[in-house]
Amino acid sequence: MLPELSRRWQAIQAEMKKAGADACLITGNVNLFYVANRVFSGYFYLPSEGEPTFFVKRPVGLNGNNVVYIRKPEQIAEILVAGGNPLPKTLLLETDELTYNDVMRLQSVFSPEKTLNATSVLRLVRTVKSDFEISLFRESAAIHSGCYKQIAGLYKPGMSDLDFSIEIEQLFRKNGSLGHFRIFGQSMEIFMGSVLAGDNAMAPSPYDFAMGGSGAHNSLPIGCNGSVMTPGMSVMVDMGGTFTGYITDMTRVYSVGKLSQQACDAHQVALEIQSDIEAMAKPGVAACELYNLAFAKAAKYNLSDYFMGYGQQAGFVGHGVGIEINESPVLAPRSREVLLQGHIFALEPKFVIPGTGAVGIENTFLVTESGIEKLTQFDENIQELGF
Amino acid sequence: MLPELSRRWQAIQAEMKKAGADACLITGNVNLFYVANRVFSGYFYLPSEGEPTFFVKRPVGLNGNNVVYIRKPEQIAEILVAGGNPLPKTLLLETDELTYNDVMRLQSVFSPEKTLNATSVLRLVRTVKSDFEISLFRESAAIHSGCYKQIAGLYKPGMSDLDFSIEIEQLFRKNGSLGHFRIFGQSMEIFMGSVLAGDNAMAPSPYDFAMGGSGAHNSLPIGCNGSVMTPGMSVMVDMGGTFTGYITDMTRVYSVGKLSQQACDAHQVALEIQSDIEAMAKPGVAACELYNLAFAKAAKYNLSDYFMGYGQQAGFVGHGVGIEINESPVLAPRSREVLLQGHIFALEPKFVIPGTGAVGIENTFLVTESGIEKLTQFDENIQELGF
Repeated sequence: MLPELSRRWQAIQAEMKKAGADACLITGNVNLFYVANRVFSGYFYLPSEGEPTFFVKRPVGLNGNNVVYIRKPEQIAEILVAGGNPLPKTLLLETDELTYNDVMRLQSVFSPEKTLNATSVLRLVRTVKSDFEISLFRESAAIHSGCYKQIAGLYKPGMSDLDFSIEIEQLFRKNGSLGHFRIFGQSMEIFMGSVLAGDNAMAPSPYDFAMGGSGAHNSLPIGCNGSVMTPGMSVMVDMGGTFTGYITDMTRVYSVGKLSQQACDAHQVALEIQSDIEAMAKPGVAACELYNLAFAKAAKYNLSDYFMGYGQQAGFVGHGVGIEINESPVLAPRSREVLLQGHIFALEPKFVIPGTGAVGIENTFLVTESGIEKLTQFDENIQELGF
Repeated sequence: MLPELSRRWQAIQAEMKKAGADACLITGNVNLFYVANRVFSGYFYLPSEGEPTFFVKRPVGLNGNNVVYIRKPEQIAEILVAGGNPLPKTLLLETDELTYNDVMRLQSVFSPEKTLNATSVLRLVRTVKSDFEISLFRESAAIHSGCYKQIAGLYKPGMSDLDFSIEIEQLFRKNGSLGHFRIFGQSMEIFMGSVLAGDNAMAPSPYDFAMGGSGAHNSLPIGCNGSVMTPGMSVMVDMGGTFTGYITDMTRVYSVGKLSQQACDAHQVALEIQSDIEAMAKPGVAACELYNLAFAKAAKYNLSDYFMGYGQQAGFVGHGVGIEINESPVLAPRSREVLLQGHIFALEPKFVIPGTGAVGIENTFLVTESGIEKLTQFDENIQELGF
């Protein structure tokens, strides 16, 4: 693991040098997991050159040359000074993740002349996945796909979307899902994933997910709402692949009986969008171009009003995945990101058809040297639920 | 719902006046749910007198006199000024919850002379529960207790702690658990709750929960770790009551076969601590006194080393509950809080006995006019798992 972690630290240091930062202090769980391959309570201190120090509050018992136990962040500065290390003049802190008061406290500990945004740096570095990380995605994708093979078999007539979701959740847990779902930003909340049946897919949510749903309770307005699944409804299953610390994302559509022709046609357009993007995507292609291609194809088939929602529409057709479900790059009209080898993203062209529900597809793709490779493999047609 | 919400707004306004704040701007989901009885993407703007305004980004379609749709927070100031309202000189923002960059942006929108901490104010106001909120706790406690009655029946010999947890999770979901578990602060992560079997209870975690456990994966080091449950092990089930938007907290201990005498004795001490606290707790009693009483009783029985963990010990014996699992008051040695009528807290005296595992109890209590009332009701003895 050490060579992999060293590679990550060096990648951060390379960005630090570009930004003119003397040190980077990390304390959020997601970034700690990235730099340490474990979560701890404390701080990871990385100077622009040389080795990092792990300042640990909890758990007890961690070993290592670079591990120093502390009770509070004020001790970090004391320990650095006592060791003859200068305090950083330009300091990277996770200013898009830590609370205002936490950043103010750390600024008063170090009194840097300048504070820069470690969140942007870490999110940038995390975007390009290593072979080690790609292997964790492959492992997740294989388990994830294996779970999807079993979903249709869980359906029983008369079930509500919530009943179906609960069975799918247990299937995932039994296959190693950790359940906990990490999301960047403070505003989005969800439990494991989403099962959307029929017109509940039209219910707009406060969150920035691709699809909505009114949810089962006003305290968590997203996803399934307890509707009984009846003939003519589509059932979209978008259950997160939280198996290995690196999230794969995957959606398949089921139907109770037959769906309307409009819905079946829209599903085919979603598959066509996926194929078009598979043909076009490779290192150097702009993420916004991929969105534009998807949007243009939806428009060509007169499906603009149904694309990525009906009434309320999501403004993207794909998103990077990693330790969090919403990483870079984002496939959106104003994205300035360009695909790089080692990017991993979820592509999810979807439509919401009133009277039927949501249709479309989602898979997780790796950007290779010359194109993209689909990691999540399973039948992409609408699957009729058995009786 | 409006009288209840008005009461909450007035309680916040009363604290605003004490603090000399002209306005309070709320945008975190937990506090939005408190002030609006729903989650939305946007801002709740409350002047020190008069009615609030809901500045909404998503979802589409919300109605009401006080609802104004915006795309970005800069519009809030423009709309206030256009309506002849002065911008606040002293502004409350959720500085213990919002990111540094979010607060910086809001400060630049309003240019207040002074920014105060809305997090402290909201957490203080949320601490005293109304009759409406108490009814939601009672509802949660009844469902929660009903679930616990069924837990022992889910056990099958040869199960791992994870297998057992998965069955319990499904039981909870089928009884209406929303799954998603809200925690104050950014450092704590958990999935639905914790099942700790045998010596896994000794594994220290990075998080500030009462108990640890190494977890099933290095990305989420908490709770069950896949150990097969074998005779002589205690199995502590602490599964969150996330049924109504207001969380109840409850723990019961199970045993595979018989436990060591030391563990059985420690369990009785935990029950005795609970009884002592039930006898003493009432409005006006300091939260630290309740902790001290618990600690002294553990010491009296020579159980100090095992109290609230072994090796790594938690520094509290109880905590307020509400929309989040960790609200005020905290029953800890340095707590300055005093019990008030309408507080609701979880009391969880627990011991970790090497070679056996965790024992003890947890219930959720309401502070009444003259004492405390146990909301979560179910057999408190160690329950031997059936064969």
